[in-house]
Amino acid sequence: MFEMKMPESGAKTNPVQEIMSLEQDAMEHWCKGDVEKYLEISADDVTYFDPGTAKRLDGIVELSRHYRCFAGQFHFDRFEFVNPKIEISADFAVLTYNLIAYEDAKAEHWNITNAYRKVQGSWKICHTHASPTQPKIING
Amino acid sequence: MFEMKMPESGAKTNPVQEIMSLEQDAMEHWCKGDVEKYLEISADDVTYFDPGTAKRLDGIVELSRHYRCFAGQFHFDRFEFVNPKIEISADFAVLTYNLIAYEDAKAEHWNITNAYRKVQGSWKICHTHASPTQPKIING
Repeated sequence: MFEMKMPESGAKTNPVQEIMSLEQDAMEHWCKGDVEKYLEISADDVTYFDPGTAKRLDGIVELSRHYRCFAGQFHFDRFEFVNPKIEISADFAVLTYNLIAYEDAKAEHWNITNAYRKVQGSWKICHTHASPTQPKIING
Repeated sequence: MFEMKMPESGAKTNPVQEIMSLEQDAMEHWCKGDVEKYLEISADDVTYFDPGTAKRLDGIVELSRHYRCFAGQFHFDRFEFVNPKIEISADFAVLTYNLIAYEDAKAEHWNITNAYRKVQGSWKICHTHASPTQPKIING
């Protein structure tokens, strides 16, 4: 399921499982409208793109302000990480997947990239890029 | 201009300049409708998202087929990398910027993420995520 490029020096914990567990847990909270878990696992110097940002957001203060604008204002019943893949080295990892988030009969489809970096021994998101999958865009 | 997190062992070349030079050169070709330079600097196992992909593309064969569908069918007069940032370690780098691509009086605005990995001594793109900045999306 995952492609791994491990560092030569073996670690005691499995970093791929660790990152997937962080992401899964954060997304479970997100689906309840709780944005704080993603903020907790984001680095102080996190950078961020989504379709609503006029430019890249830089840093946890900008990201917190952005996320908290819509905290509690959305809800999903369940989600799927479709075909998650992690490329990983000793201190960097890039997790990508297609996200499907369901609410009643509706489903949202997203392209998700989360880059993680080891910060003082813990994996933290250093970059998020979220975009809708095949949106119907009005040109001009 | 760039934030760098360098590995402890110093390298002879400046990897940030090296990556920016690869990206700049590939984008100059891209603006002429030439997609081959980006393919040359992409890893065999590159992964890819853009607004047209129904799911993540996996591997250079899928990406080549995708890029070559529109090779020569677009043109930009010039481009700007707005506020490029690289997070880098010994063998991984994440480059992000807002792209503005100009053609005559029109400008396209994009969010760009390119993750690079050292492959046999050369930096290669292992993941690209491109999405339009603040698109006007028709919901449903």
